[in-house]
Amino acid sequence: MKYSDDYTNDKFKRRAISVEEAQKRVMEHVRPGITEIVPLPEAQGRFLAEPLHAPHPYPHFRRSGMDGYAVVSADTKNCKDDETVWLRVVDEIPCGYVSDRLITSGLAARIMTGAQVPEGADAVVMLEATRLREEAGDVYVGLKKIVEPGNNITPVGYELQEGELLLEKGTRLGAGEISVLATFGIHSVPVIRKPRVAVISTGSELLSVDEPLQPGRIRNSNSFMLAVQIREAGGEPYIFGSVPDDVKAAGRVVMDALQNFDYVVTSGGVSVGDYDIMGDLVRQEGVDLLFNKITMRPGSVTTAAVINGGLLFALSGNPGACFVGCELLLRPVIRTMLGAPQPFLPRWQVLLGADYNRVNNYTRFVRARTEIRDGRVYAVPAAVDESSVMISIKDSDCLIVIPPGTGQLEEADKIEIIKLEGGGWS
Amino acid sequence: MKYSDDYTNDKFKRRAISVEEAQKRVMEHVRPGITEIVPLPEAQGRFLAEPLHAPHPYPHFRRSGMDGYAVVSADTKNCKDDETVWLRVVDEIPCGYVSDRLITSGLAARIMTGAQVPEGADAVVMLEATRLREEAGDVYVGLKKIVEPGNNITPVGYELQEGELLLEKGTRLGAGEISVLATFGIHSVPVIRKPRVAVISTGSELLSVDEPLQPGRIRNSNSFMLAVQIREAGGEPYIFGSVPDDVKAAGRVVMDALQNFDYVVTSGGVSVGDYDIMGDLVRQEGVDLLFNKITMRPGSVTTAAVINGGLLFALSGNPGACFVGCELLLRPVIRTMLGAPQPFLPRWQVLLGADYNRVNNYTRFVRARTEIRDGRVYAVPAAVDESSVMISIKDSDCLIVIPPGTGQLEEADKIEIIKLEGGGWS
Repeated sequence: MKYSDDYTNDKFKRRAISVEEAQKRVMEHVRPGITEIVPLPEAQGRFLAEPLHAPHPYPHFRRSGMDGYAVVSADTKNCKDDETVWLRVVDEIPCGYVSDRLITSGLAARIMTGAQVPEGADAVVMLEATRLREEAGDVYVGLKKIVEPGNNITPVGYELQEGELLLEKGTRLGAGEISVLATFGIHSVPVIRKPRVAVISTGSELLSVDEPLQPGRIRNSNSFMLAVQIREAGGEPYIFGSVPDDVKAAGRVVMDALQNFDYVVTSGGVSVGDYDIMGDLVRQEGVDLLFNKITMRPGSVTTAAVINGGLLFALSGNPGACFVGCELLLRPVIRTMLGAPQPFLPRWQVLLGADYNRVNNYTRFVRARTEIRDGRVYAVPAAVDESSVMISIKDSDCLIVIPPGTGQLEEADKIEIIKLEGGGWS
Repeated sequence: MKYSDDYTNDKFKRRAISVEEAQKRVMEHVRPGITEIVPLPEAQGRFLAEPLHAPHPYPHFRRSGMDGYAVVSADTKNCKDDETVWLRVVDEIPCGYVSDRLITSGLAARIMTGAQVPEGADAVVMLEATRLREEAGDVYVGLKKIVEPGNNITPVGYELQEGELLLEKGTRLGAGEISVLATFGIHSVPVIRKPRVAVISTGSELLSVDEPLQPGRIRNSNSFMLAVQIREAGGEPYIFGSVPDDVKAAGRVVMDALQNFDYVVTSGGVSVGDYDIMGDLVRQEGVDLLFNKITMRPGSVTTAAVINGGLLFALSGNPGACFVGCELLLRPVIRTMLGAPQPFLPRWQVLLGADYNRVNNYTRFVRARTEIRDGRVYAVPAAVDESSVMISIKDSDCLIVIPPGTGQLEEADKIEIIKLEGGGWS
């Protein structure tokens, strides 16, 4: 039995700052992104390192939008009163084939959807609106309707002109973006290397996931949760084992990780009690403490510091607080390093999906689930939302933001939410 | 020059069915999922192969929610009129440590957040509400406020009782779910093997992405787009090179792929014109044609067939139609194989974000982008939405569903959308 309490020490003199101020402080220490080239099939989910412009117009040739006949539209002027105009078919143009025949008045070419329209032709008549006739070894196509110039032809550069912006720097590459890259032959894609984040849990009470349960001890779940959150943000997590409650030993692990990774995130050890080793660590000399208290719940003890130029996020060990701290602080740092134009999670004005009574002096981030009811977005708070509660994280796709001093809230009251990325909506 | 037109043949006698009927027909041919075990760190994004139940209650011990002192709450009855009650501190309990001291009246134990509450104690008083006194080598803690039984103690099974359902079969594993698995020590996770999908493009006009541009030819972008969509659905794509416009050669590739993969998806070759080799392929003997026309735009020629028991999706080569066909038909098949309880993309009732005039005899799926305006969801149609247009796919996160015969629509009209998964919202 030992006593280490000294309630008059610095541990209790934390100065709380707002979430916005905390975000501002960590964002000042984002590392510059490093460009790497990946092959197109591996580019999904990555962030573009530079803006890309169209190397050629698209389409780069006059493209037929129909299976049918390429014609000179003026030839169809006589299609009235059910009169059929007959044109001599002089070529057949499948996709990928370029005709060397000039289409002049009285001529037509059979053409497929997507094929290059031959010189001279200025319209395509769809196959179903034509009929054929053979005469003296020649084939004629009969048309019955007037067609306008340009009909069923996609002009050069219809979608994009050469040099137009294709994709902005910082764009995350999904199905549509990958399609654009392939279309323009960009098979080696400049992306930002995934920010590498060391994930460390503190606490002698932590069991690894494959250890049998022991009295008074819990398994290290935060590291695995943080790893998923980091991947969703666009980073690459490296899970360290949990470090014991010893400032020196933990300090060595953290210092080492700060040298070898872009960021270090820890969970646990930041409360005001004993064995709060991360709290002690950031009070050491040479550490630039950014903050160790935020006016938010959960996670008021969330701490960040710069050590030897490296950014350390010391999150609460409570699962709910750890989750929120990562989404609000680490995520925008990762996204900024990746060049994303909007590194913060989006905030929406929506309606409250159920009464909410909890009042607080701090801004509260309440785990909740969005629902669409007749075109309106509702956010339904989780039944149990204590910071120590782990089970409701999985059922949440947003955080309701309850400003300090807010009174009782009723269903359908206007509220603000922060939309999470990973959760649901599909 | 050759002629192969015969407008009276089967090509033009396609019987169109509804999207819902088409979905029903492909869903009858979903292969059963195969269970595989993956280590927890690799389980992100995977789908659970079986329901999991809590192997123990959680928390599995009475947990302190505060740094402070574990006490017998009845001892604080005398805390009134500013009278301090003094209790002798007999132990200090960090996290992970189990005290062997019984706390009886007059005694207390220093305890950390998350530690196991000692026997006999029925409340924890927070550190900040206490003071200390030393007397004759003993330490006493002074309390000034009455505490209720259970204060700051999380009871056993507060979050989950032993045997309760943890996660349903078919659950996709995100940050919250991974946290649950780690908490309960489930380090080997039973998931459904990713459905393997062969991706084949047809068309002699197709260049590979690393080939220089040629007149009349385009690069094979659909295969890469489909690969992203398949991964987002939970499948594993295998990109084949594009096959030339030759029924026999394409048939061999498709047959071979059907034997070695769970599903085969092709793009191109399904229109009514010449060289529509997929259309020809599915008309051959031994092929169970599910449909070759759907009352939808884009993608009315979308085709599916069962060949030797294998399911073939023959999508349009138009990028927009190919994208929609994959989302509406292939995606639910993949998700059903993965056991997802809701394999279809969600449909929402929202408001139209801009006027829309295009009228059609078929159900139209209009690429669009959702916006939240003051708690309401709006869907803004893409400026250019032709099926052949590739560029607007990347800017879409939903498809507006416009039923056949719908008249002009105005901004703020009520509409239905299908919410896509990949697009934005963050």
